Amino acid sequence: MTMRGFLYPRTGTGRASLIPPPPWHYSGDLLTVEYRTDPAKVAALLPEPLSPADHEPGAVAVIWADWQSCSEGGEELLDPVRSQYKECFVVVRCQYAGQTYSRCVFIWVDKDFAIARGLHQGYPKKLGSIHQTRPHPYGPAPRIEAGARFGATLAAGDRRLAEAVLRLERPSEHNGFVNGHPMAHHRWLPSVVKGEPDSLNELIRSGAAVVTAGQAWSGSAELRLFDSPTEELAELTVEEPLGAYYRQIGVTWDGGTVLA
Amino acid sequence: MTMRGFLYPRTGTGRASLIPPPPWHYSGDLLTVEYRTDPAKVAALLPEPLSPADHEPGAVAVIWADWQSCSEGGEELLDPVRSQYKECFVVVRCQYAGQTYSRCVFIWVDKDFAIARGLHQGYPKKLGSIHQTRPHPYGPAPRIEAGARFGATLAAGDRRLAEAVLRLERPSEHNGFVNGHPMAHHRWLPSVVKGEPDSLNELIRSGAAVVTAGQAWSGSAELRLFDSPTEELAELTVEEPLGAYYRQIGVTWDGGTVLA
Amino acid sequence: MTMRGFLYPRTGTGRASLIPPPPWHYSGDLLTVEYRTDPAKVAALLPEPLSPADHEPGAVAVIWADWQSCSEGGEELLDPVRSQYKECFVVVRCQYAGQTYSRCVFIWVDKDFAIARGLHQGYPKKLGSIHQTRPHPYGPAPRIEAGARFGATLAAGDRRLAEAVLRLERPSEHNGFVNGHPMAHHRWLPSVVKGEPDSLNELIRSGAAVVTAGQAWSGSAELRLFDSPTEELAELTVEEPLGAYYRQIGVTWDGGTVLA
Amino acid sequence: MTMRGFLYPRTGTGRASLIPPPPWHYSGDLLTVEYRTDPAKVAALLPEPLSPADHEPGAVAVIWADWQSCSEGGEELLDPVRSQYKECFVVVRCQYAGQTYSRCVFIWVDKDFAIARGLHQGYPKKLGSIHQTRPHPYGPAPRIEAGARFGATLAAGDRRLAEAVLRLERPSEHNGFVNGHPMAHHRWLPSVVKGEPDSLNELIRSGAAVVTAGQAWSGSAELRLFDSPTEELAELTVEEPLGAYYRQIGVTWDGGTVLA
Repeated sequence: MTMRGFLYPRTGTGRASLIPPPPWHYSGDLLTVEYRTDPAKVAALLPEPLSPADHEPGAVAVIWADWQSCSEGGEELLDPVRSQYKECFVVVRCQYAGQTYSRCVFIWVDKDFAIARGLHQGYPKKLGSIHQTRPHPYGPAPRIEAGARFGATLAAGDRRLAEAVLRLERPSEHNGFVNGHPMAHHRWLPSVVKGEPDSLNELIRSGAAVVTAGQAWSGSAELRLFDSPTEELAELTVEEPLGAYYRQIGVTWDGGTVLA
Repeated sequence: MTMRGFLYPRTGTGRASLIPPPPWHYSGDLLTVEYRTDPAKVAALLPEPLSPADHEPGAVAVIWADWQSCSEGGEELLDPVRSQYKECFVVVRCQYAGQTYSRCVFIWVDKDFAIARGLHQGYPKKLGSIHQTRPHPYGPAPRIEAGARFGATLAAGDRRLAEAVLRLERPSEHNGFVNGHPMAHHRWLPSVVKGEPDSLNELIRSGAAVVTAGQAWSGSAELRLFDSPTEELAELTVEEPLGAYYRQIGVTWDGGTVLA
Repeated sequence: MTMRGFLYPRTGTGRASLIPPPPWHYSGDLLTVEYRTDPAKVAALLPEPLSPADHEPGAVAVIWADWQSCSEGGEELLDPVRSQYKECFVVVRCQYAGQTYSRCVFIWVDKDFAIARGLHQGYPKKLGSIHQTRPHPYGPAPRIEAGARFGATLAAGDRRLAEAVLRLERPSEHNGFVNGHPMAHHRWLPSVVKGEPDSLNELIRSGAAVVTAGQAWSGSAELRLFDSPTEELAELTVEEPLGAYYRQIGVTWDGGTVLA
Repeated sequence: MTMRGFLYPRTGTGRASLIPPPPWHYSGDLLTVEYRTDPAKVAALLPEPLSPADHEPGAVAVIWADWQSCSEGGEELLDPVRSQYKECFVVVRCQYAGQTYSRCVFIWVDKDFAIARGLHQGYPKKLGSIHQTRPHPYGPAPRIEAGARFGATLAAGDRRLAEAVLRLERPSEHNGFVNGHPMAHHRWLPSVVKGEPDSLNELIRSGAAVVTAGQAWSGSAELRLFDSPTEELAELTVEEPLGAYYRQIGVTWDGGTVLA
């Protein structure tokens, strides 16, 4: 039989596939905290053929995002359990073939369709519990303005892994520099046969196909990272704060290329 | 020892109390669907000394709300797992001592602090899973404008109980009429002694102390209600659609009065 | 109209009530860790007219329980999302009118029907995420036997609050002594009118109406308590371990009496 | 740098990997409902080079499982949020190179580590909410004996997808026949480049390396399947009930082989 469906489970119709094919469209709010850690700690997360970035090799961005996402047609938006998810992800910089890339080294999301998209895009997604303050025009929640404060937290396995409070200070011409390059990600799957090499081991490049964005804001942040027996995020200690950013964006993702 | 704490668990410091004392402040988005059901079905949900409203005795509002809330000082906003919650609630109209009241007959929320506030305010809160489309200025999520569509769903006990799609059509001078009165709620707690009368049986009146609100929008909605062995929401069948509304608000709640 | 339903929401039929009337029946596994803390810390959790126990006034039991529960008739057992829940609770000893009582000072559960039963019984229930190793006759999970190890964890608000590992050593004639008395609990509800005294302030006594139980086991435990901005469990520091117990039980609860 | 870790995220130490390498060990309880559907519906779920089974080509098993699992060493058992999960999966029969295989066509689990193991093993896992009655020696929960009744439910996306009630009747020499063969699964990952063939498209064979099992019981079941916009389970209509089974097992999984 011919099987249809972008990902599993594949069926005759493709309706049950965990995710539909790209393009995937997103509306979301990003809270970004950037800092410098020991560059050796970043280098230890870069498999061959990637090498540390020439510039800012110890820079780290911890980013919270609150998304509504959909496939072409947008029907998920009207059944929002299928559209909304939150994530917290950690990005570093690296270099390949003379070009600088961003690379997500850790990421937690709260829905299975987001895990599945990460499989495709090379984001190493786990499940977590993610929260971030949302701006609101009325009542006690913050407006997007100087002095506004936004909190953000991450937990997984019933342990808090990270928390941040950002304070907006001024409009910014950018939303940080660590996550600003095309992504260089690996897609790995071990062989089902013990001892054999990976069945899939690809270095891919991808990035947003279309981005629309509101005014970025910069400010300052307190960031705290907590240890866990099954995580290594807290190893990326904050040696020097670099900046904090807030931005609302719309983005479309529509595939990538294979680098190696 | 002197115990402190607005609600349980009470301790020497009051820090562990499930909720702090009012005032409670909220920022949120409301999706409202109003319709007429058989007035006898509404009357069957009104205990003495309440009686059916003279006007529109069969009117029902099903309302989804996406909240960020906090106590005085607002610290919960920066640890948003303690601030954010969603709810779906069902409001009817009733009459007491010659005045028209709104009354929440069913309500589901997704956090314990929201359940606890409901105990205090007489909202009959259960846990549920609630989702609603959020407006966003970029990407595929809707702006607040004519033609925008918002979805909303409710589940409890692993069963979907309600789903709606609203389509905004035009600015409105109001946000519906069913939930527009002071609330007349009962606070009931059975006696721990079997066969004895309720230990608490109060009719209270409460409402928002302060409200700020954006432009309301009206439109049309499709609403579907589903049966469950432990719910009676689906009994309130949609006999005649009345309207649908969208509004962003800020509100403060700061106590009520005892009616009977 | 006549309203039916043990708790809210009350309706003409009572079907939607969050919980049915007692008796409530339970099957479950209990993991108990007992220790001594500073008796002053226990005393600080005892409101009048309770006083510290003459004997072992600093004893604390932290108890994890994995339950299947139902009302008369047992239909919840066949729709287990309505039957199963887990809890972690903290019990101390106290005295009233010359008699020793147990008292639950903190408790977390993972279902709304369990919160509602706690309202009735005076257990100060919050939502949490609770896990405990279950015994199993096959594979890597432990049998109930000497040397078996059971883990147990508690989290709330995306923070881990407690974790324990118990090691069974020998059959025991009892399951600990801290939770072995009738419970002396308060049922409190603040007035909806600001500044007024509590609308409900009762001291009640209750306990199991029927208990069947398997062989208790005793052993040793490591217990770790973690701080949180909204909890006071970690204040009850472990000064001296007393014991650890494992037992499977069946229990029926069927009401209590008012002490004061 | 050398990267360690069985799956992503790979790091210098491998500690953060979502799952450790096999062997994986499991203790669990299985509830199995077997029936015949239209063989054409099963055939429509079999991609080349698989073909329908010669014998019972329309047989389906819907299986609920309540697991505690761990890697070599077993540390996850003592932090049970990392060990326990539940699943509901749907198995059919098929044929390849003259041999009969079982094949999981749909499966829902409630933890990310279970999703990750499924990636490796070719189980098409989504997240769901799964519940099943557990046997217990005391109180109202059932013993494993004639007349005992067990409920089981599955939901995903806030919709109930399946529910069953099993009644045990007699000891059985087996636990059903649909899931009794080695598994023939595909491991698929689309190319990140739009329009290119799958980057991974493997047919693998795997099965338990070690099994220990208690007495199987057979009986009868009522099974109900519900539709959802994103699922195709309800298409596998129950045309003729075949049997229902209950068994407790221990199992070890330790890799597979590539068939094609």
